[in-house]
Amino acid sequence: MEVIADIPTLRRSLEATSDLAFVPTMGNLHEGHLSLVRLARRHAARVAVSMFVNPLQFGPGEDFSAYPRTMEQDCAMLEREGVDIVFAPSEAQLFPVPQQVVVQPPPIADELCGAFRPGHFRGVATIVLKLLNIVRPRAAVFGKKDYQQLHVVRTMVSQLNVPVEIVAGETQRAPDGLALSSRNGYLSPAQRIEAARLYRNLGRAAQSMMDGNRDFPALEAEVRADLKAHGWDVDYVSVRRRHTLEPAAAADADVVILAAARLGKTRLIDNLEVCLGPAQFAKIWGQVW
Amino acid sequence: MEVIADIPTLRRSLEATSDLAFVPTMGNLHEGHLSLVRLARRHAARVAVSMFVNPLQFGPGEDFSAYPRTMEQDCAMLEREGVDIVFAPSEAQLFPVPQQVVVQPPPIADELCGAFRPGHFRGVATIVLKLLNIVRPRAAVFGKKDYQQLHVVRTMVSQLNVPVEIVAGETQRAPDGLALSSRNGYLSPAQRIEAARLYRNLGRAAQSMMDGNRDFPALEAEVRADLKAHGWDVDYVSVRRRHTLEPAAAADADVVILAAARLGKTRLIDNLEVCLGPAQFAKIWGQVW
Repeated sequence: MEVIADIPTLRRSLEATSDLAFVPTMGNLHEGHLSLVRLARRHAARVAVSMFVNPLQFGPGEDFSAYPRTMEQDCAMLEREGVDIVFAPSEAQLFPVPQQVVVQPPPIADELCGAFRPGHFRGVATIVLKLLNIVRPRAAVFGKKDYQQLHVVRTMVSQLNVPVEIVAGETQRAPDGLALSSRNGYLSPAQRIEAARLYRNLGRAAQSMMDGNRDFPALEAEVRADLKAHGWDVDYVSVRRRHTLEPAAAADADVVILAAARLGKTRLIDNLEVCLGPAQFAKIWGQVW
Repeated sequence: MEVIADIPTLRRSLEATSDLAFVPTMGNLHEGHLSLVRLARRHAARVAVSMFVNPLQFGPGEDFSAYPRTMEQDCAMLEREGVDIVFAPSEAQLFPVPQQVVVQPPPIADELCGAFRPGHFRGVATIVLKLLNIVRPRAAVFGKKDYQQLHVVRTMVSQLNVPVEIVAGETQRAPDGLALSSRNGYLSPAQRIEAARLYRNLGRAAQSMMDGNRDFPALEAEVRADLKAHGWDVDYVSVRRRHTLEPAAAADADVVILAAARLGKTRLIDNLEVCLGPAQFAKIWGQVW
């Protein structure tokens, strides 16, 4: 496994590689990332992983400085997965001058997480485009845990004609259902136990939909109320159309419930896809909760 | 020469081509474009030219509908130049859905022409990135006549790490000095004669600089006043640093005089690079006027 910190070396190393799959990360890897790496391996002969905590996607007062950086441990994990190349650039490599040219994402980027993290998806879209241009993979893998991010990246790639296939990886969960996330490390033991409520509530709402309840605003309110009653600060709970992330209507068959809420200072996000077609096809994506 | 209208066919045709130079145009070709095509030929084994009148870069009330479209004549010219591929997509090919993801260009894009054509360079940057992603050339050629456009494209390519070399082609001029431009076709015979004043005045200002005059605001005012006295509506005349397009100061050695002005309804732009180093190196780029 090559660990490369600068763009010219990376380009030289990748010169003869056309069949490459790429997993962009911010490091501090867990089983969620590794599942994306394994998915990447199934899509190409070689796999590159980037580790870069992207300042553009953090707002003022967010956890950019505190974000966990565990480079050595991350590299050991990736080596065991048979990753070919790790790209871990410095900020100076990616931003030799202040970044003035940015990608303006679609309007949906101002809703959901974007409403609470202004500029977040502009920062995500910009760094993803830069990394895709530097690494030039045939496929790039993004996790469904960051569902809105996946949507923004797909929309960017499609509308800017970026020559890459975007592959979506399923959310990996702890045995109690909590979506794996680097930010889980911020939780106290008591918060860690409580944190599983987020997914449990999404699951309960999904089951209620499957049972015929199409009053999405009421379902959203229920999830929100239960989280609040247990000490969470809720940013949003929202049922959306799966392919566009527009607000879902009762007649929609293909939806996703998205939520973001804070336990103490830790902001957690999760989502659950629900197919509400004819009864025999109805299903909830993901694991049992 | 292949003339291709859709993206999948273009991709198939270019599959095995790595050594490609690309000239994006809006069609209605003249000797200026052809000089860029010849420059492209010197940079790669194969040459692709796109012809697309990009709606994103025209403001309301500008000449998008009136912009001359002369596809058949253009193809004949390109065939004679030995061009390999012409890409002439429909709007539906490039914008199957309304373009919501756009490139936000650097702040300089709001000055000079950008101050008079709001959103113009956002439209330019977005279409150029899309075309580069579709065509994937090793080099792309842009003319210096659109000096600010060249600067915005270079900045975008650099800051978004787009894997392409940007090559600049010199402005081609009529015998009286007028920069070749598709918009020259809008001029009446009398306006066409008057139009040469723009470059003549830039040349006079450049000569004055070479003679030691470093009062740029006074030089700008002189050019502006002479144009106005001869019936022009002047958008701007501005001496800028050549590499950043920041306003030039008296001590700057490497400058460019840029101007945009209207004769009747026709908006013309031109520019002249001037090197003000030690006397023996001082020179004016371009032809004698």
